[in-house]
Amino acid sequence: MTVLILTSEEDVTADMVVVHLNASGVPVVRLDPADLTGGVALSGEYVHGAFRGHLWASGRLVGMEGLRSVWVRRPGVPASRVPEPSDWLSEESSQALYGMLRGTDARWMNHPDASHRARHKPWQLRLAQRCGLPVPATLITTFPQAAREFAARFPDLVVKPVSGAHPQEPPRAVPTSRVAPDTDFTAVAFGPTLLQRRVAKRADVRLTAVGERLLAARKVTPPDADPDEVDVRFASAATPWTPVEVPPRVAEGVRDYLRQAELAYGAFDFAEDADGTWWFLECNQSGQFGFVEVETGQPIARTIAEWLAGQEPEAGTACGGGTSGALYR
Amino acid sequence: MTVLILTSEEDVTADMVVVHLNASGVPVVRLDPADLTGGVALSGEYVHGAFRGHLWASGRLVGMEGLRSVWVRRPGVPASRVPEPSDWLSEESSQALYGMLRGTDARWMNHPDASHRARHKPWQLRLAQRCGLPVPATLITTFPQAAREFAARFPDLVVKPVSGAHPQEPPRAVPTSRVAPDTDFTAVAFGPTLLQRRVAKRADVRLTAVGERLLAARKVTPPDADPDEVDVRFASAATPWTPVEVPPRVAEGVRDYLRQAELAYGAFDFAEDADGTWWFLECNQSGQFGFVEVETGQPIARTIAEWLAGQEPEAGTACGGGTSGALYR
Repeated sequence: MTVLILTSEEDVTADMVVVHLNASGVPVVRLDPADLTGGVALSGEYVHGAFRGHLWASGRLVGMEGLRSVWVRRPGVPASRVPEPSDWLSEESSQALYGMLRGTDARWMNHPDASHRARHKPWQLRLAQRCGLPVPATLITTFPQAAREFAARFPDLVVKPVSGAHPQEPPRAVPTSRVAPDTDFTAVAFGPTLLQRRVAKRADVRLTAVGERLLAARKVTPPDADPDEVDVRFASAATPWTPVEVPPRVAEGVRDYLRQAELAYGAFDFAEDADGTWWFLECNQSGQFGFVEVETGQPIARTIAEWLAGQEPEAGTACGGGTSGALYR
Repeated sequence: MTVLILTSEEDVTADMVVVHLNASGVPVVRLDPADLTGGVALSGEYVHGAFRGHLWASGRLVGMEGLRSVWVRRPGVPASRVPEPSDWLSEESSQALYGMLRGTDARWMNHPDASHRARHKPWQLRLAQRCGLPVPATLITTFPQAAREFAARFPDLVVKPVSGAHPQEPPRAVPTSRVAPDTDFTAVAFGPTLLQRRVAKRADVRLTAVGERLLAARKVTPPDADPDEVDVRFASAATPWTPVEVPPRVAEGVRDYLRQAELAYGAFDFAEDADGTWWFLECNQSGQFGFVEVETGQPIARTIAEWLAGQEPEAGTACGGGTSGALYR
């Protein structure tokens, strides 16, 4: 039973996981859909009520029925590296590859449908609420008057994109920024705007969830930090990420979130306030974990390898150990 | 409780359904996401663990919690009709609108995730097999040798696109064509190719499924029909569509398909052979139904209106009547 990894050639994070799979003797096929129909080929046959499919990559042929799991890491656009790429060929290749893989019994990290849905931030906020995770008061609006009234109720606000990264090539992350007290909200009418109560944070928390296992890390906000620096991705690296235990109520909410979102992997961002409450900011279904593993020593890559190899304990059993980052200190 | 219809302004098929909803006094809001942020506005607030959202269109404000159903008919690209459209604004608007709607309890026809998945033809073929629907022998491949061997086993073949419509503006349907006996399959290496055993058909069948209700129509193939004319969409209109009863085994397979595909609406195409077997060709989750209704008099628009209004019988109860197209003769 083979693990299929869909990612670009240069992906050191995938390399970290492959090392663990190789060490456990689990067969791995790694390919980039961009290499269809050059270095990668496919074939699938539907005859007499049955399906038999094959993938060919790096000189190896693998049966699709023999796939134990598919890791959708950072795959390129299908068939985008052929001499004459076209939208039509990419679409045909995408449907052929993912259409056949979708029909197999392999486990997905993450399933493309779940990933697609999980990118919707308004949906994330609602799901987090439903799972009992504290969500800072948020408004998404195209009504200037709604924005003004919200700012009157919650005077200390941040603004962030509804959709995440700017869709240019390469994608550019748009930082979360503080809203000045005298802001004129007239321009809200020209595009949906996401306003959120700023959490006066004493730390940022990154919780990496792999199946039922939760690995959390915490980065203390320095006491002299500029309160305008709200986005940890763009903040100075004055303090390190250190492992932290996940409060039981948060663990319960996060597992509920993953189940309902049908995600096998998620990188949760929380802001910890002075009372110790973890406020849900977002869950990135394809969030990086390399920097956390390097700084904290938490075995995220190994945990992913174990999940892909199908060795992780079933939901609801033997999860206690996975809950606690303290195990890995 | 309001029905929300997402479609373009000029959509006579939607008009047909709206007539029935209006006649039953069901409130309807119809909008085109392309009109964000001009004629359409939105706002949603996440405060104290709850969500309150509103849409504004055609001078009316409707609460998102009060939506009974959402019909995703032919919506335009969000915010594409503003004076200066951009990919970024469309993405922000799409995430805001669909992200909020996804968090409501409304029923969808069809849910965007289910629609997206249902477009994958390789996945369709596998699901149809699993639901016990007969599928003509099919090969999807980039291996010329696999194509040659398949053609040797099944000499009478058709070729069709893996993905459906060509992604140009406006989309162009690519017809299914017959494969000449002496075809050279070398070019298969340059793009995934779908080959399928040609069904020597005596009729085409279009089965429109609305929730649990199945309405089938049949178009007899004239005895003197050119066997190269395999695609009914491009064939001459010599014979009309007439209502036909759905064989019980097909009805069971189709309902199973819809359940597993999580679709509330699907337009199934079958080819009926000389033995009367209905061979599954495809299920289009956004297939047109206007032409069938006009030719057969089957009340498809009314059935959709009833589903949207939430008046259709629950799954598993009182379905007998819906099974039979004969009711509507």
